[in-house]
Amino acid sequence: MIYLDNAATTRVYDTAADAAKRVMLDDYFNPNATYSSAVKTNDDVEQCRRDIAKSIGALPEELIFTSCATESNNAVFDCCIKNKKGNIVTTCGEHSSVYENAVRFKSRGIDVRFAPLKKSGSVDENSLLELIDENTALVSVIHVNNETGVVNPIARIAERIRKKSPRAIIHSDGVQALLKTEISLDALGVDLYSASAHKIGAPKGIGILYVKNGINISPILYGGGQERGLRSGTQNTPYIAAYAAAVERFIATADRSKMTGIRHDLSVYFESRGCFTVGTDENSGYIICVCIPGVKAEILQNAVHDKGVIIGKGAACSGTKRGNRVLSAMGLDPYQIECCIRLSFFTDTDSKDVLNAANIIIDTAQAIRSNNVG
Amino acid sequence: MIYLDNAATTRVYDTAADAAKRVMLDDYFNPNATYSSAVKTNDDVEQCRRDIAKSIGALPEELIFTSCATESNNAVFDCCIKNKKGNIVTTCGEHSSVYENAVRFKSRGIDVRFAPLKKSGSVDENSLLELIDENTALVSVIHVNNETGVVNPIARIAERIRKKSPRAIIHSDGVQALLKTEISLDALGVDLYSASAHKIGAPKGIGILYVKNGINISPILYGGGQERGLRSGTQNTPYIAAYAAAVERFIATADRSKMTGIRHDLSVYFESRGCFTVGTDENSGYIICVCIPGVKAEILQNAVHDKGVIIGKGAACSGTKRGNRVLSAMGLDPYQIECCIRLSFFTDTDSKDVLNAANIIIDTAQAIRSNNVG
Repeated sequence: MIYLDNAATTRVYDTAADAAKRVMLDDYFNPNATYSSAVKTNDDVEQCRRDIAKSIGALPEELIFTSCATESNNAVFDCCIKNKKGNIVTTCGEHSSVYENAVRFKSRGIDVRFAPLKKSGSVDENSLLELIDENTALVSVIHVNNETGVVNPIARIAERIRKKSPRAIIHSDGVQALLKTEISLDALGVDLYSASAHKIGAPKGIGILYVKNGINISPILYGGGQERGLRSGTQNTPYIAAYAAAVERFIATADRSKMTGIRHDLSVYFESRGCFTVGTDENSGYIICVCIPGVKAEILQNAVHDKGVIIGKGAACSGTKRGNRVLSAMGLDPYQIECCIRLSFFTDTDSKDVLNAANIIIDTAQAIRSNNVG
Repeated sequence: MIYLDNAATTRVYDTAADAAKRVMLDDYFNPNATYSSAVKTNDDVEQCRRDIAKSIGALPEELIFTSCATESNNAVFDCCIKNKKGNIVTTCGEHSSVYENAVRFKSRGIDVRFAPLKKSGSVDENSLLELIDENTALVSVIHVNNETGVVNPIARIAERIRKKSPRAIIHSDGVQALLKTEISLDALGVDLYSASAHKIGAPKGIGILYVKNGINISPILYGGGQERGLRSGTQNTPYIAAYAAAVERFIATADRSKMTGIRHDLSVYFESRGCFTVGTDENSGYIICVCIPGVKAEILQNAVHDKGVIIGKGAACSGTKRGNRVLSAMGLDPYQIECCIRLSFFTDTDSKDVLNAANIIIDTAQAIRSNNVG
């Protein structure tokens, strides 16, 4: 199988799976206990935290391990907004774990404002800035869109927000961005940043919330006081080890220019076959969204699966929902949206495989069209 | 090493670790995607849910996978209390993940009432019932105390609560009880029940919240709508597989009468050596708390570790905090509390190892006392 749905999830690196299993069987002590075997386990957790932090331009104490980015994004809303009277500004291009929280807060009567997207996929920066004022408590802008791979220029946006509203807390959902675009969290200038480890070769079930030094948040979970009192619950030591191993392996194998090349070549190929790329702004290279006119993605997805190619259609976490909020916000009509597929890649994605897959996709689409006509 | 801190965490079963690794490497699809490989992954998740549910007397749709029991217990407070004006009744014997939430709600001005413990370790049932009235929104009573192993008779307590306050939501924290005492959730008669998989041989980082059919809760996390919309976030498929494998293995190897025998023999042994058992009520057999007069647990813990015995001193998640809220509530004085150790067992705990360990503990305690005298 050629697996091109890596934005949803990816195979766990062997080194990460081995690290997890080793901790499960050999280093299973509770890191909060006080005897020396457990203290060693705790030291291992802290070493992983330091390693991950160093790799992403953060300080160790700025990283809270969570169970996933969805938890991190929920925490941004539940734990990070002190002045509940302030307004919240976000975009129409957010992942559901930010969007649904924004809707929830709006339904509680809080002033939540949504900035539009440009046709090319990134947030309309000037409109975003217009929505921000001195009463803005939180601004949340996704770093790399999970449907299109389009990058929002967070560093520049954060700088502009600071000038207009110095007290606003700035958050970015970096699930599809962390290590996949040129980033150091420190250089991004955000206060909060969310990420999920399973997008870079670690298992599903661990993420981080980056909380910049000096930013106070209330606890995500109350209890034993783990994670500096901010996220109680026995730490997931196997996955923390796997996360650190995955970061190391990802950095060793990732080749950003290769990914950009794959996306570019695919874009050219599909456009030569009467399709169009959705999201033409600067992109991460790891995700491309393509509209294949006249062929419903759902049918195409199943048809190419039978031929050994796994493709996505929109975010997996909205897989069974109809329509697509983000593509709508980019101005696509419902019929175009039904015909959009998402291809997404990983460090080990082979360029030739991808072009073979693209041929299969186009041939299959053609056959579906012919059948429809017939 | 003889490891006697299994109430804090336990070695992951080989079968559970293998199941997790298999999913990481071979069945890593996102269960929310719509192509057939992913549908199969989702089927696997649902099979695990059915297997676990069947083993604990629940219906599959009554189990929500969470990241840990701390998350489940937090959700009980944040998502399950509809009438925020009602009072909350809990006990002085709760784990910190219930207790700290009770304190949090109290600090918000909510009427939170704490039922006392008896000297023998279980909750004072009559006092508990007196605190409950028609305005009680939630009652939360721990099933097996994590410090002493004492069992609260939840089925009887739940029945008495129902008679007095039919609309109260009844929750029990079953972290140290699930599969370790004779229980079927259905027979317990509670509305909500929390458990953590790492206490029965699965990895740290997965738990459940049981929500009885007909009980409505608001979502724990908002986002992609996983877990029937109640707990968004990509499911931790490796750990769900590991959880199911651990439940199967635990049931196959657990021997309740063996554990009861170990605890009884230890109790007799320690009492013959001038110590006393803390918590004399009916118990789970998996945990014993012993006061060794004149010897601080912290010193003893380190001293016996050097001789190959790992023991606990109170809950690991309060390992670095001074004092002990639960033992205080049982009437122990601070000096006695400092001298309390916790021994806790697992299915593979060897009776002879435990008695050897007890000898080492007593000999070491004697040596510490002599040094103190000298």
